[in-house]
Amino acid sequence: MPLDLSHGDFTLPGEAGFEQLTLRLARKWGADTIRDSDGTRLSPEIIQAGYNIYSTLCLVRSVNDWALRHPDKLQQSFLMSRPIVAGRPTVTIDLLAGFFREQFSVNMDANARRWWQVFDRTTGAEVPARHWTVDPRRGTVTIRKAERWHRYTVNFLAYRKWEEISMYNHITNNWGDREHLAAVDPMHPETQRVLLAFLRRWLAGHPDTSVVRFTSMFYNFSWFWGDDPALRFIYSDWGDYAMTPSPRALSRFAQEYGYKLTSEDFVNGGLYNSTHNAPSRRLCDYMEFIHGFVAEFGRRCVDLVHAAGKKAYVFYDDHWIGVEPYGPRFKDIGFDGIIKCVFNAFEVRKCAGVKGVRTHELRLHPYLFPTGLKGEPTFQPGGGGNPALDARNFWIDARRGLIRAPIDRIGLGGYLSLVEPWPDFQEAIEGIAREFRLLKSLHAAGAPYVAPFRVGVLTAWGQLRSWIASGHFHRGLEYNEMIESLAGLPVDVRFLSLDDIATDGVPRDLDVIINCGREGSAWSGGHFWANDTVVERLTAWVARGGGFIGVAEPSALPRTGSLFRMAPVLGLDRDRGERLALGRRTFVVEPEHFITAELPEAPNFGKDIDGIYLLDGETRVLAARDGSPAVAVHAFGKGRAVYFSGHTFSPENARLLLRSIAWAASDETGYRRWSSSNVRTDCAWFAASRKLVVINNAGSAQETTITLGDGRATLRVQLEAHGIAVLDR
Amino acid sequence: MPLDLSHGDFTLPGEAGFEQLTLRLARKWGADTIRDSDGTRLSPEIIQAGYNIYSTLCLVRSVNDWALRHPDKLQQSFLMSRPIVAGRPTVTIDLLAGFFREQFSVNMDANARRWWQVFDRTTGAEVPARHWTVDPRRGTVTIRKAERWHRYTVNFLAYRKWEEISMYNHITNNWGDREHLAAVDPMHPETQRVLLAFLRRWLAGHPDTSVVRFTSMFYNFSWFWGDDPALRFIYSDWGDYAMTPSPRALSRFAQEYGYKLTSEDFVNGGLYNSTHNAPSRRLCDYMEFIHGFVAEFGRRCVDLVHAAGKKAYVFYDDHWIGVEPYGPRFKDIGFDGIIKCVFNAFEVRKCAGVKGVRTHELRLHPYLFPTGLKGEPTFQPGGGGNPALDARNFWIDARRGLIRAPIDRIGLGGYLSLVEPWPDFQEAIEGIAREFRLLKSLHAAGAPYVAPFRVGVLTAWGQLRSWIASGHFHRGLEYNEMIESLAGLPVDVRFLSLDDIATDGVPRDLDVIINCGREGSAWSGGHFWANDTVVERLTAWVARGGGFIGVAEPSALPRTGSLFRMAPVLGLDRDRGERLALGRRTFVVEPEHFITAELPEAPNFGKDIDGIYLLDGETRVLAARDGSPAVAVHAFGKGRAVYFSGHTFSPENARLLLRSIAWAASDETGYRRWSSSNVRTDCAWFAASRKLVVINNAGSAQETTITLGDGRATLRVQLEAHGIAVLDR
Repeated sequence: MPLDLSHGDFTLPGEAGFEQLTLRLARKWGADTIRDSDGTRLSPEIIQAGYNIYSTLCLVRSVNDWALRHPDKLQQSFLMSRPIVAGRPTVTIDLLAGFFREQFSVNMDANARRWWQVFDRTTGAEVPARHWTVDPRRGTVTIRKAERWHRYTVNFLAYRKWEEISMYNHITNNWGDREHLAAVDPMHPETQRVLLAFLRRWLAGHPDTSVVRFTSMFYNFSWFWGDDPALRFIYSDWGDYAMTPSPRALSRFAQEYGYKLTSEDFVNGGLYNSTHNAPSRRLCDYMEFIHGFVAEFGRRCVDLVHAAGKKAYVFYDDHWIGVEPYGPRFKDIGFDGIIKCVFNAFEVRKCAGVKGVRTHELRLHPYLFPTGLKGEPTFQPGGGGNPALDARNFWIDARRGLIRAPIDRIGLGGYLSLVEPWPDFQEAIEGIAREFRLLKSLHAAGAPYVAPFRVGVLTAWGQLRSWIASGHFHRGLEYNEMIESLAGLPVDVRFLSLDDIATDGVPRDLDVIINCGREGSAWSGGHFWANDTVVERLTAWVARGGGFIGVAEPSALPRTGSLFRMAPVLGLDRDRGERLALGRRTFVVEPEHFITAELPEAPNFGKDIDGIYLLDGETRVLAARDGSPAVAVHAFGKGRAVYFSGHTFSPENARLLLRSIAWAASDETGYRRWSSSNVRTDCAWFAASRKLVVINNAGSAQETTITLGDGRATLRVQLEAHGIAVLDR
Repeated sequence: MPLDLSHGDFTLPGEAGFEQLTLRLARKWGADTIRDSDGTRLSPEIIQAGYNIYSTLCLVRSVNDWALRHPDKLQQSFLMSRPIVAGRPTVTIDLLAGFFREQFSVNMDANARRWWQVFDRTTGAEVPARHWTVDPRRGTVTIRKAERWHRYTVNFLAYRKWEEISMYNHITNNWGDREHLAAVDPMHPETQRVLLAFLRRWLAGHPDTSVVRFTSMFYNFSWFWGDDPALRFIYSDWGDYAMTPSPRALSRFAQEYGYKLTSEDFVNGGLYNSTHNAPSRRLCDYMEFIHGFVAEFGRRCVDLVHAAGKKAYVFYDDHWIGVEPYGPRFKDIGFDGIIKCVFNAFEVRKCAGVKGVRTHELRLHPYLFPTGLKGEPTFQPGGGGNPALDARNFWIDARRGLIRAPIDRIGLGGYLSLVEPWPDFQEAIEGIAREFRLLKSLHAAGAPYVAPFRVGVLTAWGQLRSWIASGHFHRGLEYNEMIESLAGLPVDVRFLSLDDIATDGVPRDLDVIINCGREGSAWSGGHFWANDTVVERLTAWVARGGGFIGVAEPSALPRTGSLFRMAPVLGLDRDRGERLALGRRTFVVEPEHFITAELPEAPNFGKDIDGIYLLDGETRVLAARDGSPAVAVHAFGKGRAVYFSGHTFSPENARLLLRSIAWAASDETGYRRWSSSNVRTDCAWFAASRKLVVINNAGSAQETTITLGDGRATLRVQLEAHGIAVLDR
């Protein structure tokens, strides 16, 4: 029976007042579901048109009247005051100086103030509480007996008066005097009662809703705003738990874990706890604690949804903190689906890889807002935007991941009315939806071929942050770039932590381990590399035949005379200036190697880690920049290691990575089966369907030669710009 | 009486067999002195021609026959064996693997082996002596009970069989089977008797010698050679004491200082103790100990020279370790003169600044060798060299320093015969000698004007390493580049250490302090910045009106959330990747400022320190590169701070530095008196002589406007390429 590619698995954002457009596009795009969005409503005419209905719900900002009457039940954060140098023994610090005062108000409650800390940041010592006092009226702290010319800061608790997503949308879209929503703290029993009561009412009031689309649960990603236009975003991290603490949370933590956290565990010298930096063990405990709370209270919410005969989906953005779709308790919440907004391939994999839900849905870009996330005039009439092209480009970036991993649904979000003047955008989405349904059908019949290289990505976070490098794909971060390359390769990928290796050793079924990032980062591993057992086990594993790929500053932990803990395996290390008097082994770049066979020239990694020196004559350099190796290979025992001085995602570099994986796995021939000669194209072999999918990632027509499953026979394929070919074999 | 610029204060290298050339050039260049060189001799015809005679003497390699018979009296070094990863519990390490075996032989003596150490470099722990054994015949150490996959090294003592300057000259000039000279260890009483007896004989045998030119005293700068052409120089540092240790030295040190050093104090994880890295306090003690020994035994040698009616000069290169011309005991040795080979301006200042000797002499470049220090074919017939141009360029580079500080003599070294085919070289030297005598005469009449900015250069080393950045001017090191800029500026300069400030505070008469270098370096200060007192005092000093100039990573000491200890003063700090989630204050580059007024564009610092972020809105950015401030200024209290992201010596950047000094000193008008509008020119006002000297540092004609001493009146001056004008006022 021929497949119907014109209908199904598509979520359309409806908009009251534009009923005709909504229903027309629902038909054109083959939608089976209509949703509302932040700022839009659905009218009865839409709701009763026979579609499934998703209704977005952000519980913690849904009880704003109550929140206004209970300012002590708002969510809180530990903030660090702007550092002040003491010019005299008494110094007064304005706590909120520099912060956006519409977002924060200091929690002056005595119980909260017990958690405050004042630090002499010059010595690093805490200032005894008897040496400082608080002026609640002025919002200041005065330190007495300050050491002159030392730098002081105050860690304090602040309520967040304006929920950040609401604040961002409000300010971006000039919502004027529309009310400011605040997020309540779900850990208070009273708040929980209010929220559950609200949810019950809400469920009763939405009989036509089939899916409650939680956006998301309780705690936003971290976002501290500044009051100075020159420093609007003081801190923003997609994975930090900085929006969760409260005296109640800290007390409960101390009870459960047997030790007390401090404000400094959150403030961390003003760095806070960015996902990019290797976490402290205390932070890991706290994250586990919050994850447990979110799982428990989340479950109670989801149970109500189910009891109302509806499904519960969760949005893998915004208030996702504590939800942790790759965390151990996620499945306990009982969600039916997860929705991920997606710009690119690793986000597809991030969504597809989540276990414990039935439905994995992607919300495509562009979001239907007048301006894009970077302020570009996407849908502004006469603004010079090209939303159709944007949509195609986002789709092409994501599609590399979609041919490797199955996704169940796609959709859009925002103001549908904005697309009315853009018929080419309407056409583009129709085409994308058809292509999606085709790929889904192939996955449904059976998984695509993967090359025989099982790859482990080794970070401080491990599985908890699979396919995550703190939010969306921001170019320039090696780890981000590397997982984007990886997301489109025909290899099995899993994520593991240094602690996993310390505890359980290297998983037996891995062929290659990748460690990528700068020194101190969570991606490279930071202080977790201090564990000698990890070094022993990884070294032994490579010596016995494993493959290790190090990118940028792999396994970096500064020791006198050495930076990379895996230096003997890599056959190289990094000099950060301390080896100026030491000679550097000269080398000749090898002109021909399996790994670089398809590179026309030395790879462009954007910014390269410099100062790489070779440990001995066994390390072979395949590319260099400014005299420092950029790609090098080293045999170690029966295993092999590859080093890259950086990474940017590009067709050439993704291919370089795949070949490096094959070489590190000591299986150069395994690479050939179902490979595509043109690096701007990818192919996937769906054996169960006997279909060969070839995609063109380029904006121009391409020709490629596919090597078939015997590793020898070939097939030439022509593809139009951004095209896809599905060939029966 | 008109000055005779044609004669005097010039040392010519004579060469037996080329008597006519020697005497002709002695006349042409106005020499008053003839010297021998390493590899050349003087004949009686030269010696008795009526010139003063310098005779080079390197005592420690002068008793080679005795040295060959007493291999246990050779100098020694602690070496670290090449790291080995233990694949099994028993691992054998070839101690000299990778080292040049013509330079080293392992000291297998039981007394020496007591100082050896074996390290597990994976854990950092020392391996107990009971777990390793030495095979003296094979030159190996075998470790038992090694942890599998850990990395091991052995610190061991090796004799140095071939003195390094002799070795370098021998190999560079293909001296074939000429004997290999070895350096004896002067700390042995027996060696001292032999050396003093030799010196007595030598003095008696050189009745015509007027100056004994010591090259230098006892210990060479550090130079470990490798056996692999890809790693010929394993370690070379102009200021490290790695050529001095021996069981005797270590025992005497323990007696004098009350604690024992270890081999690891020297090996330092394989980094050794490069002058570029902030020294340990134990190393500083040891350097003081060796300096004391060199001063004492050196004095005994110099006394013999004086008793023979001769003068003793010391060469400020080669075997200078322990001599420390800026050290506290240097004057005690009793030298009459110091000779410094000179490539550039800071080396002129380095020589001129030495106290406790009457005569300061420069040995100009090029050295009369067929090939230059970098292997260029300077004097090779038909080799394409241009020694006349080289000589002029070196002279121009040095002259910037010579107009600021007085030097007593100049000269050349090497094989005079090589210059015979180069008449233009002969002309060039004649002209340089005249120019030198002119400048000397002006200094003799009275010091040149200096602007009212007294500058302190703050490093870990302080005065001990004044004008020194580990040997010659190697481009690319910010500190080297910065002191080269400074060496030609009309300002008083002194060098001070962080410990000086901790002990004595900031000197009252300083206007500006410069701190320049990368984190961890001796130049930036490294671990010495951990002293809070230093930070307090410097901060207070700036607040009260001082000027602070930070270059690259000034005051860097990593703390959570901060890198620069002086960040509040500089108004900025550096993010090395850990602040990825923190916003960076945006800024606008100020188009006009006193500091950048003469820069046509953003300065070129070669390699810039990136990731600089502003602490507040008070910091003004004057130049930026790739979004990171390159030049920034910040007022702090009554004082001012300037930041450069790097430095390369260029006419523009030297001017930028001078203007920054003036601005930091809060004295912009003080800068104008006796300044030259054209950055490629410099001027010096010799008030006592009422002479204005204007020099052109460029290889093309230049015009400039000099602002005279009232800060208003001006004078236009035309200069030919590399020219000099001396104007009466």
